[in-house]
Amino acid sequence: MNAAGAAATDPIETDAVIIGAGPVGLFQAFQLGLLEIACHIVDALPQPGGQPVALYPDKPIYDIPAVPVCTGGSLTEGLLLQLKPFTPRFHLGQTVRQVEPQADGRWLVATNRGTRFLTPTVFIAAGVGAFEPRPLKVDGMDRFEGTQLLYHPATLPVVTGQHVLVAGDSDEALAAALTLSTGGQAASVSLMHRRDVFQAEPERVQAMRDACQAGRLHLVIGQPAGIGTEGDRLTTLQVLEPNGSQTPLPVDRILAFLGLSPRLGPIAEWGLALERKQVVVDTATLATSAPGIFAVGDVVTYPGKKKLIVSGFHECVMAAYGAVPLVFPGKPVHLEYTTSSSRLHQLLGVAARGA
Amino acid sequence: MNAAGAAATDPIETDAVIIGAGPVGLFQAFQLGLLEIACHIVDALPQPGGQPVALYPDKPIYDIPAVPVCTGGSLTEGLLLQLKPFTPRFHLGQTVRQVEPQADGRWLVATNRGTRFLTPTVFIAAGVGAFEPRPLKVDGMDRFEGTQLLYHPATLPVVTGQHVLVAGDSDEALAAALTLSTGGQAASVSLMHRRDVFQAEPERVQAMRDACQAGRLHLVIGQPAGIGTEGDRLTTLQVLEPNGSQTPLPVDRILAFLGLSPRLGPIAEWGLALERKQVVVDTATLATSAPGIFAVGDVVTYPGKKKLIVSGFHECVMAAYGAVPLVFPGKPVHLEYTTSSSRLHQLLGVAARGA
Ligand SMILES: Cc1cc2nc3c(=O)[nH]c(=O)nc-3n(C[C@H](O)[C@H](O)[C@H](O)COP(=O)(O)OP(=O)(O)OC[C@H]3O[C@@H](n4cnc5c(N)ncnc54)[C@H](O)[C@@H]3O)c2cc1C
Ligand SMILES: Cc1cc2nc3c(=O)[nH]c(=O)nc-3n(C[C@H](O)[C@H](O)[C@H](O)COP(=O)(O)OP(=O)(O)OC[C@H]3O[C@@H](n4cnc5c(N)ncnc54)[C@H](O)[C@@H]3O)c2cc1C
Repeated sequence: MNAAGAAATDPIETDAVIIGAGPVGLFQAFQLGLLEIACHIVDALPQPGGQPVALYPDKPIYDIPAVPVCTGGSLTEGLLLQLKPFTPRFHLGQTVRQVEPQADGRWLVATNRGTRFLTPTVFIAAGVGAFEPRPLKVDGMDRFEGTQLLYHPATLPVVTGQHVLVAGDSDEALAAALTLSTGGQAASVSLMHRRDVFQAEPERVQAMRDACQAGRLHLVIGQPAGIGTEGDRLTTLQVLEPNGSQTPLPVDRILAFLGLSPRLGPIAEWGLALERKQVVVDTATLATSAPGIFAVGDVVTYPGKKKLIVSGFHECVMAAYGAVPLVFPGKPVHLEYTTSSSRLHQLLGVAARGA
Repeated sequence: MNAAGAAATDPIETDAVIIGAGPVGLFQAFQLGLLEIACHIVDALPQPGGQPVALYPDKPIYDIPAVPVCTGGSLTEGLLLQLKPFTPRFHLGQTVRQVEPQADGRWLVATNRGTRFLTPTVFIAAGVGAFEPRPLKVDGMDRFEGTQLLYHPATLPVVTGQHVLVAGDSDEALAAALTLSTGGQAASVSLMHRRDVFQAEPERVQAMRDACQAGRLHLVIGQPAGIGTEGDRLTTLQVLEPNGSQTPLPVDRILAFLGLSPRLGPIAEWGLALERKQVVVDTATLATSAPGIFAVGDVVTYPGKKKLIVSGFHECVMAAYGAVPLVFPGKPVHLEYTTSSSRLHQLLGVAARGA
């Protein structure tokens, strides 16, 4: 395979690339740090934390060892704080599409945004897959993504004079519709959902109803059925209403908050041994069938595997030690304790204490 | 083997016995609790916490996942708090000596203090062994243990009119000597250590020197070389001084604080497959070579095993699921999340939250 070619800039050379910044990817970076293996972390989401942050941010978790209760948010904060001394570099909002072997034994890792890495080791901590927004399914809509159609935008766009449609029934969707409808700059703001039932806080649903009452917001119950365009521009959305009739809605901008769903996607195409869509690993090193590629967390399978955070944490330890011979060939590796090793104290930036 | 016989009371019947209340034994009890497996926990030490509490209570630990820093003490507190909903019963200050198969397939577990259990499953979380006090090595001294010779007593004895000797150089030893020397009830109080150098806080060493200066405490630099008795009573200790001379010291009571050292001891004799003194386990279930006996934490070996707390935690999960078929034969077992399972919320005693 030819690694040169297309991309303009040289790939980033590093000891390790971690695919996935979920709880397991983050602890993997910490364990690599203890062994002095530098790494880059890539995640499809705009923020670290994986499933606990993307799927259940506010629900208490009770089985993180020695932590009687935490949330996805506080768990992630703890992992990031612990990881801080090792200053790993994050590449968020990017999906790894390609992992290709190079002639020198290293791997070329490339994202959909053109970031490329050359590395002797890759750690797949991809969980149940890359979180991607659920698409607004209408023929011809794809080509407006990123311009007139935005999925889960982190900041709301300027919409002066535009007809705006917000799609979704979550707090995030309602909050966006309310914010846009209060500014008054938009020509019109509509909120579209298939049913007149919302998965949001009661207060926010009430605020939405009040905004509709006041005429600032327009509630559309129905599903997208087709689009109308003028030249390169999207101009209308055909809405199929529950009673079967179709109504054209003028739109300059659509903000879609239809949720995130994980897609294992490209990982299934990297030639690794899989079993029911899980990456098969050796429990001693978490090595996959490809030399230099390790996998940890929810994405792996082995006899007895439980998809729990605590198991992923242990796997990170095993994988980190498994990687040492590839990053530092011939270097002897001994287990050292963070309580008593002055080498680790130095790495962690903590005052040395006597043994 | 005959389970009846000797002991007067019936053995305690339970689902599981955990040998060892170190970090791994404690998290094992939590994981069993989630699966509704009731347990008893036995430890040789008077308090839970294992090595981190017995060997390095105040040293910071930096690699407990999502906990940037903790001590053995705070780690143990966290584990005990997490475990609280399951109210496991602790049997501290007792060493398990015997684990014997019964005709009905269960195990009879017995401690040195006569506590006995009948259980389908045993979890060996014995770490590097049962912590036992380092002995005061002098011929003939053994038979005074528990009467005139006390090792690491949790509460100090009444010593009115007695000649007391405290052996050791730790904070614990010096604190005991100082307390006994201030009451004034003892006929005399001596502190014995092999060198005139102490492993204690400078303030406490100074307080000890002050007490010697004031004549309340007598400092003896030397090692025990022999004993003198009258009938069944210990009356003198021969002390070998650094210059080679021997001096007889009158003693009615010796309190020895010579540290704790782990002894794998009886575990090596239970007929389990061992490899370099570690229990061999199957990584899928942490099952040992004996059906119903599982082992977790520092005491086990498998390919790649690292003696770290985080690995022990994962092993507890695997072992708990491994035990279900023995405790609840035929019961189907599904992985449930503490965040979303109302069964687990009920067990944990937390308000149910919607999914
Ligand atoms: C509702 C629910 C409740 C749960 N409750 C508990 C609980 O109480 N206790 C517990 O232990 N576990 C619980 N879990 C399971 C727990 O969330 C997972 O075990 C854990 O998140 C796995 O962590 P991970 O880092 O392996 O994967 P994830 O958390 O899935 O993170 C993987 C990350 O990788 C990214 N990624 C994937 N592919 C790519 C790619 N190609 N390029 C870039 N990025 C990529 C994803 O965007 C994601 O952020 C629960 C799960 C759910 C769904
Ligand atoms: C100085 C030092 C620093 C360390 N630093 C770290 C660190 O930074 N991070 C890390 O992850 N690990 C560290 N460790 C290792 C860590 O302490 C162990 O991995 C951990 O304690 C293992 O837990 P455990 O529960 O398996 O065993 P233990 O902690 O050894 O507990 C076992 C318990 O079982 C009891 N027991 C044994 N046999 C019997 C019996 N027959 N009857 C009754 N009771 C019995 C013992 O009394 C003991 O309390 C360190 C260890 C040392 C010595």
